[in-house]
Amino acid sequence: MATKKKQVVKKKQVGSTVKVALLGFGTVGSSVAQVLAASKFPGIELTHIFNRDVQRKRSSPGAKAVPASVVWTEDINDILNSKVDVVVELMGGLNPVEGWLRKALASGKSVVTANKQLIAYRGASLFKLAAANNVHLVYGAAVAGGVPVIPGMLQGLGGDQARRLSGILNGTCNYILNRMEGGADYATVLADAQQLGYAEADPSADVDGFDARAKLCILSRIALHAELNPDAVTTQTISTIEAIDFTYAKELNCTIRQVSQAERNGKAIHARVAPMLVPLSSPMAWSHGTQNMVVVSGRFGGDVVFSGHGAGGEPTAVAVVSDLLAVAQNCSSVQLPVRKREVTGEFMAPHYLRFVVDDKPGIVSAIAGALAKVGANIDSLLQTPGHPKHRLPFVVTTEPSLTSTIEKAMKSIAKLDCMLEKPLCLQILVPEDKSE
Amino acid sequence: MATKKKQVVKKKQVGSTVKVALLGFGTVGSSVAQVLAASKFPGIELTHIFNRDVQRKRSSPGAKAVPASVVWTEDINDILNSKVDVVVELMGGLNPVEGWLRKALASGKSVVTANKQLIAYRGASLFKLAAANNVHLVYGAAVAGGVPVIPGMLQGLGGDQARRLSGILNGTCNYILNRMEGGADYATVLADAQQLGYAEADPSADVDGFDARAKLCILSRIALHAELNPDAVTTQTISTIEAIDFTYAKELNCTIRQVSQAERNGKAIHARVAPMLVPLSSPMAWSHGTQNMVVVSGRFGGDVVFSGHGAGGEPTAVAVVSDLLAVAQNCSSVQLPVRKREVTGEFMAPHYLRFVVDDKPGIVSAIAGALAKVGANIDSLLQTPGHPKHRLPFVVTTEPSLTSTIEKAMKSIAKLDCMLEKPLCLQILVPEDKSE
Repeated sequence: MATKKKQVVKKKQVGSTVKVALLGFGTVGSSVAQVLAASKFPGIELTHIFNRDVQRKRSSPGAKAVPASVVWTEDINDILNSKVDVVVELMGGLNPVEGWLRKALASGKSVVTANKQLIAYRGASLFKLAAANNVHLVYGAAVAGGVPVIPGMLQGLGGDQARRLSGILNGTCNYILNRMEGGADYATVLADAQQLGYAEADPSADVDGFDARAKLCILSRIALHAELNPDAVTTQTISTIEAIDFTYAKELNCTIRQVSQAERNGKAIHARVAPMLVPLSSPMAWSHGTQNMVVVSGRFGGDVVFSGHGAGGEPTAVAVVSDLLAVAQNCSSVQLPVRKREVTGEFMAPHYLRFVVDDKPGIVSAIAGALAKVGANIDSLLQTPGHPKHRLPFVVTTEPSLTSTIEKAMKSIAKLDCMLEKPLCLQILVPEDKSE
Repeated sequence: MATKKKQVVKKKQVGSTVKVALLGFGTVGSSVAQVLAASKFPGIELTHIFNRDVQRKRSSPGAKAVPASVVWTEDINDILNSKVDVVVELMGGLNPVEGWLRKALASGKSVVTANKQLIAYRGASLFKLAAANNVHLVYGAAVAGGVPVIPGMLQGLGGDQARRLSGILNGTCNYILNRMEGGADYATVLADAQQLGYAEADPSADVDGFDARAKLCILSRIALHAELNPDAVTTQTISTIEAIDFTYAKELNCTIRQVSQAERNGKAIHARVAPMLVPLSSPMAWSHGTQNMVVVSGRFGGDVVFSGHGAGGEPTAVAVVSDLLAVAQNCSSVQLPVRKREVTGEFMAPHYLRFVVDDKPGIVSAIAGALAKVGANIDSLLQTPGHPKHRLPFVVTTEPSLTSTIEKAMKSIAKLDCMLEKPLCLQILVPEDKSE
């Protein structure tokens, strides 16, 4: 009769309330307070807020939605030693947050977090700690903000075997590349993004792909049941993309996006975060502005697309409050076995190679020779008119080849005398789902 | 300490197994068996299959994935009186399925169903019955097949307040309208769809919107927390759309889709299933072939898009098996209060009015007069060249007006002598999310 027991639905305890503490009262924290105040969900009570400089925070406009009964504190022990049931962590980073959350979990508090680094780098051990203490650790806001890709995959795609995961996971890069698609140059757009608050003063985490790869690892755990070391995932910066690349991409019926991609190949996972050419007909080309998008390609279900606002206070607060509801109602997620997997940055894909040369006879032949030497076939050669011969940008695309093969050829091509810039090599994304 | 109890995660009973019966072994049923055989999920055991003509089914190619231990039966009581833990219903319709599932729920069996009619028309009372018996009733496959819009909304958007729900919920209509967009006419495409098995011999449930409105009601319950009577939702057939409408839609930077739409307005819900003009820039225009798509517009999270394969054996089986995993692991969904709501078919929206006339002076003035009489403003007048004067199709678009206002004017316009066909009136979808 053990089987009978298993399917009994846990009764919700009517009338009981979970006490909630917020760690961090910035943009997302104040939006969480606002969403909670607007909807007055039964069973959820905001009781504590932890932040530095409480005096200033309490008098900020965002604090208007905070009930008068809430205890504000600058001492984390006021939270950890309290009777709070759920700690909502919106501070980010590993230190000191990890230690605090370990203490919270160990003392029987559930945790809702938007912290991608924490889940990507420490998820495995934190999930174990939560399970050992019979509490929840949920992180729907850690990837793609208000887009419910994590709960959607956990509860709705568990029955499939995902082959591939492609995502636009960094809104800042998407904003920059969208603006460049419209004709602006990188430096101008980056400066605008910084002024709008979309990009940090040091934009490296976004434009060099480190933010996106943490998110890719979180999604790989769910979709591919693979535990990856984020530091082992290859990244390529978007900062070397130039306006001319959008011109050539358009010639190829493509645009350029920062794509986070992970693919199963036997026991290994191929993963990479890089600017890629994506066909205009692909869902990946649909995402505008700071939107995020995830395409999961399943063996049985084909391509499933999730998209929406990947960042911003209110969309992220939706994910946080939805997780909070799940914890308050004791709704756990489907769990499937996850394994540690090796990562390689190798993909078998067509490539886009852009050169800027001081034109003279023999260049194409030299490039073609270098590609032939590694066994890569040229698919097309593009040269739009109107460029000066002494600074000529042109493009070669290849038939599907391994990343390392192309990189080997590019190393020798880069050494040619006529090259005025480091040649650019971009993977061309091929849609998985050909069933349309 | 009641609050403490509430957040304790229910421990999964390691090693226990839920016994599963399939009701119905058609396309979806055999795909479910195939997906289960391919993935061998721990804790799930297929033990019974109920179908008519078991002899034939057992020897069908789809039965190859069925374990030899499975009991095949033509007698539903073999299932209802068994020790099966979960009944997976893939037969459809209300009768006799509803009675069987009530018995199953009442006897402590959980139910996984793909039956949209059952959930749309009987959901409220069935959910109560399931709760009273502490068992699960899950229905992720009832809407949009393999697209996890139901679990995604339940677990990931509970924290938002949805204002509007727009969907492409019928793959058959989407296939027909996509083909017509490419230049084919309705009758030809319908015949093709019937031959491909996308459309029934009597295509009414699809093309007249009855299938989609059941799905819209299921989604409204989750997103808008509104219990609607499906029969009260206005529908409009796609069968009056002609090739010329795609030509004019293109002039307006739009295409035509069967849209299922529900919108909150105070205590009432505005809902309608109808062919509508959708801007090419809108996610609704992205869906190709038999794809399904749902756009949920939230107060805090903005537009969230889900899309993918809405039908077919394998995508639907993914939804069924994902639900089965949730039941096997005793994962329940977030529940928020739902209320019965009145439905109206009224929308404040711009409209597309297409006329086919025997051209003579005064027609435009008569149409303009009829619209002015009800207070509707003309936004544009379109007439592409090359049509014979004695059978001239042309289009008027209006500024946002109430559906009933436009319908009133159309009634009087239809009576004009020059009208060769019943004029066509389509709502023009205006995107909710203007934040891009």
